[in-house]
Amino acid sequence: MSTSIARAQKLVDERIRGWCSSLPLSDLYAPMAYLMGLGGKRIRPVSLLLSCELFGGDMEQCLDEALGIELFHNFTLMHDDIMDEAPLRRGRSTVHEKWNVNTAILSGDAMLVKAYQAMGRDPEVLTLFGRYALKVCEGQQLDMEFEHRGSVGLHEHLEMIRLKTAVLLACAMRIGARLGGASPEDEQRMADFGEDLGLAFQLRDDLLDAFGDPRKVGKQRGGDLRAGKKTYLLISGLEKSLAHGRTELEVELRKMPAERNVERMIDVLEELGVAGEVAAVADRRHARALASLKEIHVPEDNKSALLELAARLLDREH
Amino acid sequence: MSTSIARAQKLVDERIRGWCSSLPLSDLYAPMAYLMGLGGKRIRPVSLLLSCELFGGDMEQCLDEALGIELFHNFTLMHDDIMDEAPLRRGRSTVHEKWNVNTAILSGDAMLVKAYQAMGRDPEVLTLFGRYALKVCEGQQLDMEFEHRGSVGLHEHLEMIRLKTAVLLACAMRIGARLGGASPEDEQRMADFGEDLGLAFQLRDDLLDAFGDPRKVGKQRGGDLRAGKKTYLLISGLEKSLAHGRTELEVELRKMPAERNVERMIDVLEELGVAGEVAAVADRRHARALASLKEIHVPEDNKSALLELAARLLDREH
Repeated sequence: MSTSIARAQKLVDERIRGWCSSLPLSDLYAPMAYLMGLGGKRIRPVSLLLSCELFGGDMEQCLDEALGIELFHNFTLMHDDIMDEAPLRRGRSTVHEKWNVNTAILSGDAMLVKAYQAMGRDPEVLTLFGRYALKVCEGQQLDMEFEHRGSVGLHEHLEMIRLKTAVLLACAMRIGARLGGASPEDEQRMADFGEDLGLAFQLRDDLLDAFGDPRKVGKQRGGDLRAGKKTYLLISGLEKSLAHGRTELEVELRKMPAERNVERMIDVLEELGVAGEVAAVADRRHARALASLKEIHVPEDNKSALLELAARLLDREH
Repeated sequence: MSTSIARAQKLVDERIRGWCSSLPLSDLYAPMAYLMGLGGKRIRPVSLLLSCELFGGDMEQCLDEALGIELFHNFTLMHDDIMDEAPLRRGRSTVHEKWNVNTAILSGDAMLVKAYQAMGRDPEVLTLFGRYALKVCEGQQLDMEFEHRGSVGLHEHLEMIRLKTAVLLACAMRIGARLGGASPEDEQRMADFGEDLGLAFQLRDDLLDAFGDPRKVGKQRGGDLRAGKKTYLLISGLEKSLAHGRTELEVELRKMPAERNVERMIDVLEELGVAGEVAAVADRRHARALASLKEIHVPEDNKSALLELAARLLDREH
């Protein structure tokens, strides 16, 4: 592993651990420490640090912002889990299950304030952060809206996941670039890099659910299909089915989740060539991300850590 | 009415109206415009403007911050109404009733981001705002905690209402003072003025519920008592009853709300002299607020608008 990635990871983990242990003991703050303590890959704060270093900045000078972006991400998880009525997060009880819904609402609110406090050094960074934060909310709103709609087009869906998940990685890359001293043009390129990477990551995630090795992915094969979750993969499958006059997917979706023949659904997606198409869309996004990174005016050697991060994000099987 | 108050009110109303009409049409933003459009006295933004003017600042230069403090206040209302399962706010449906709980959570989150965006000019103002915002969350957390506790002491209760309601007025006064160019000492005095005024206001509100003229107060007499809401008035009444060996209040509270003899409860509070005592506590806070304002080094004439605002807040019967 790149020394920079390992160092960024260590700095982020230490900063988060220190932050959690400094919180007052009360039902307002304990859920924040609990959720942050459940772990995760810390992709956003690590990306922020690597992006800063790319332009010659000092990682240790932007640990507050790295913490801030991870706090914001976890705030969205706390509230999204309420909205989705999710019982588990990273294999453990969600905050509203372990405490209650009201505590999860309020602790999430305070966590957003804490995220702002961590972010609050450079007014320009705060302006960027606010703009991206609203986009994330807009993405979540579209997600809720689409859940109650019969049909959702591929483009609409892509816009939703762009807002809901990709823009926060763009935000992390961009803030890191800014703090590292990047030019406005390079800042924008890092935002593009993060956004395309985030989209490619999300599309790969959809694919892994159906076509990954369950032992490596760590969850049941086809869980999203069983739940009828409208992923890019499933929406593509339904569109393709319509074009080819095939009805198997729709038939399965009309059944109760427990009754669905998920293996059959996966076979249909394979037969229609949907898996290959989604992989191609993800690859194109990945290539676009790399092209943005390539255009950045720093020695190529400096880019190795971010290239490795991108590769690990997309090749991961878990 | 003071010309300054009228002008501040007009500026705030215009700014809020303009802000609401600039929002995109979607379920993320419509609830914000709805809630802001329900009106209210706009005490916090008006106080912010008057506080700025007190030190020679230009009201029109801090309309963004005035908007920000009102957005924050309304964000807390949107989420508090979910937590309290309140069906009505200012006589109209609450956001979670008119839309749904998830929309109210998400729109509230985005409203907090919008409040930060409006606030975001001066880093010192943002630091103040964040600190006060957390206090408001801590107050709401205590309020929820106390609801599920058998007994709550008067001092604990006072600390809760200080955090939940008084500190935001302190925050408004303080930010206004800062933007108006006050010295750090005067800034602190304005914060003290706002906090004491906020507490006096809340205590008067408890009293009005039981002893106000229902026609002027605009709601049923003793509504808080019927609901068994643990106000400062009721907690004092219970403590005093214990000391005098009287059990009427406890007997009434053990009944279902609809069965409670509210007029009897009010008589007991009167007989025990509780009403007078609570009024005295409110008066002391009012006097302390005025003492803080008196110490501020500006011509006395400049203070007339804030003095009138304080008087109107506390003498109001509706």
